Amino acid sequence: MKHTRRNGRGSNSAQLRRYNERIVLQFLRKLGEASKADLARAAKLTNAAVGGIIQTLADEGLISEAGKRHDGGRGQPATLLKLAPRGAFGFGVRIDRTNLETVLIDFEGKVIGRCSHDMILPAPHQTMQIIRDDLDNLISLLSEEEKSRITGIGLAQPFNLGSWLHELGLPEANFKLWDDFDSVAALEKETGFEVFRENDGTAAAVAELFYGHGRQHDNFLYLFLGAAIGGGLIQNGDVSRGMSGNAGDIAMMPVPPGHLTTTPKPKKDWDILLTRASLVALARHINPSDFSALSRADLQNAVDENNQLFAEWLEDCIDALKPAIRSAYALLDIPVVIIDSDLTGDFADLLTKGLAAALEDAAPEARETPEILFGNFGQDAGAVGAASLPLFFNFSPRSTILTGGVSQGSAGAAIHEANGVGHSAALAV
Amino acid sequence: MKHTRRNGRGSNSAQLRRYNERIVLQFLRKLGEASKADLARAAKLTNAAVGGIIQTLADEGLISEAGKRHDGGRGQPATLLKLAPRGAFGFGVRIDRTNLETVLIDFEGKVIGRCSHDMILPAPHQTMQIIRDDLDNLISLLSEEEKSRITGIGLAQPFNLGSWLHELGLPEANFKLWDDFDSVAALEKETGFEVFRENDGTAAAVAELFYGHGRQHDNFLYLFLGAAIGGGLIQNGDVSRGMSGNAGDIAMMPVPPGHLTTTPKPKKDWDILLTRASLVALARHINPSDFSALSRADLQNAVDENNQLFAEWLEDCIDALKPAIRSAYALLDIPVVIIDSDLTGDFADLLTKGLAAALEDAAPEARETPEILFGNFGQDAGAVGAASLPLFFNFSPRSTILTGGVSQGSAGAAIHEANGVGHSAALAV
Repeated sequence: MKHTRRNGRGSNSAQLRRYNERIVLQFLRKLGEASKADLARAAKLTNAAVGGIIQTLADEGLISEAGKRHDGGRGQPATLLKLAPRGAFGFGVRIDRTNLETVLIDFEGKVIGRCSHDMILPAPHQTMQIIRDDLDNLISLLSEEEKSRITGIGLAQPFNLGSWLHELGLPEANFKLWDDFDSVAALEKETGFEVFRENDGTAAAVAELFYGHGRQHDNFLYLFLGAAIGGGLIQNGDVSRGMSGNAGDIAMMPVPPGHLTTTPKPKKDWDILLTRASLVALARHINPSDFSALSRADLQNAVDENNQLFAEWLEDCIDALKPAIRSAYALLDIPVVIIDSDLTGDFADLLTKGLAAALEDAAPEARETPEILFGNFGQDAGAVGAASLPLFFNFSPRSTILTGGVSQGSAGAAIHEANGVGHSAALAV
Repeated sequence: MKHTRRNGRGSNSAQLRRYNERIVLQFLRKLGEASKADLARAAKLTNAAVGGIIQTLADEGLISEAGKRHDGGRGQPATLLKLAPRGAFGFGVRIDRTNLETVLIDFEGKVIGRCSHDMILPAPHQTMQIIRDDLDNLISLLSEEEKSRITGIGLAQPFNLGSWLHELGLPEANFKLWDDFDSVAALEKETGFEVFRENDGTAAAVAELFYGHGRQHDNFLYLFLGAAIGGGLIQNGDVSRGMSGNAGDIAMMPVPPGHLTTTPKPKKDWDILLTRASLVALARHINPSDFSALSRADLQNAVDENNQLFAEWLEDCIDALKPAIRSAYALLDIPVVIIDSDLTGDFADLLTKGLAAALEDAAPEARETPEILFGNFGQDAGAVGAASLPLFFNFSPRSTILTGGVSQGSAGAAIHEANGVGHSAALAV
């Protein structure tokens, strides 16, 4: 298996073959286990074609046998196939304003190892040093052969690290330095791996698409309720990045001013979602005088006790999410909204049920309401999302593999597409 | 040229060839005129490959010569090619609550003929009779050979004809009958042509994509400010239909209550965009006691005189569009918003400049503002949009031609895609 940046201008049959290999991998990821006949049926390919693809994928170590299945009839039992858990690996790096995390995941999305630092984000070069040390530690968990199966580094970081510091209760310190720092170039230079950067919401959406609810859903809006609120947009089984990689920037959606006395008054006659639907807003409601002193554990305690202040914030949070999600539904006509959070336990149920009821109540005449699902990754969403990026861009059957003209293996390619720089007919006829 | 429903399961090389033919047609549509060398460069195909495609397209009568170009150097002047205006035709039918319109357009998007009826929409079967008569009249404008080049009928109608009657000042009359009427099946049965239905906003967005600003822009949100307000969403040069064909349903986006005394009070603490940003709202502000008596000409007069009541409504309309468009921009990260309207003259400038300034003023920290453009079709947007649909679905290089598995030539195929029923590897390897 080669891990170099792939060029989308390959020959015709090579592009088709690669696309169909990825279709087969996708069905295995969605189904868990499947026979050759199952895959041929699902992918609408001949048995012979699937046989050839299976042979290639097995030779590359990407799939393995998962046992036999007796279908009851005569004849040989069918061999079941699955993804080879150690067939490919991805590194994920999550840079956030108060946390720095590096993880290594396998081909099934399982976290093999992680390094985490709870700290106000240092200056860029110091941060790169910490990340390199963490990557060195994690790579030692793999055998020499496995090291050749690392597909790259996914990097998740908020769109503008140097913005919204006041709203988030943070000092300016080193943040402004990040706005002009090219973290992709720096990390590629430091490590030699290809780096795929997305904002944290989009990366988490990719984790959900590749390893979570995406097994059942190809179209969803994804929200993550953390210190801030982030999001990502999945359409037709692919990530919608937008013109500057910031689609799903739900934090900036205008909403009416909040009802809590602890919410800062907006400067205009409306506010933005970030102010009301975020864990900073919960912390501020619990301890207005020193909200940045509260830890994630303090907030989780408030949930677990079903604290009155938590209940007040939750009501206001849902009230703020309501117009934002109704707006998104009107614009996108998407069937599902997935919401995940740093908070766990009863929170999942309280939030999803409360939100579903509020959205239903606010539905205009003749309009439906999207299904609300809670995410699968919780606090791990950002880091697993980051680590999913190299696996997603290397192994997902994106249509641009066929329409060609741009490198398929990088987020850079996706930017190129999103800008609509022009379709090209890279397939020689 | 065949006009039957095409099947996406063709052989490998046929699919690739069709895709590349459409790429070449797209460049001619965007560039106007181009030489073989221009097309080869733009499409990243070899001269020989483009030569073969050009021969096929010329044989099919889809392109023609547009003259010669001397590039100054030695050698033969280059032959310039263009779309053959009469190489293909599309019918458009627009069914609206107070208007019924049928048009015939050519391959360049020019309206060849039209039949229009300003009337409260009759019951479905009576309407079908009117449409059939209009189609019969229009088809007589074509020669026998040209009749074989009709690609189908595009049908544009609001998502729920039977809803929002009260808000629009209309009687219930026959509208409820439409909610259960299958207009696609009825029209296919009546005419024998393939019918492509979209809601009116999406159809108008396709006209703009295929024959308007789409020549320069592949990603935009489209809005049409008519009696109601409609919209459509274009991403990566393709139409985003959403799960039920109702993406871009901007009318239903929540906005703060309006500031005009003539606006009905909303039942909740927020309103929907339809109430404020629509020509019904303008009519209601000009003549609150009998707003449905005002014609489009009355409203245009108010614009042309720069009437005080018009100015008040415009301010409130822009104030309502502001949070809706900022929401869309946050979600989609799209570079352009195109807005068109039944009103013309100074209105284009007043609206686009006012809206651009308001959006800029409302931009959150570290966030940009999309460019605002006025549309190209005005009152014709719905009808030309409808007529663009069969041409778009038959001649646009959509990636699903390659990823296959569903019929490419119908809106039904697009529904299939939008629901993410699953990718299939229809390309035999």
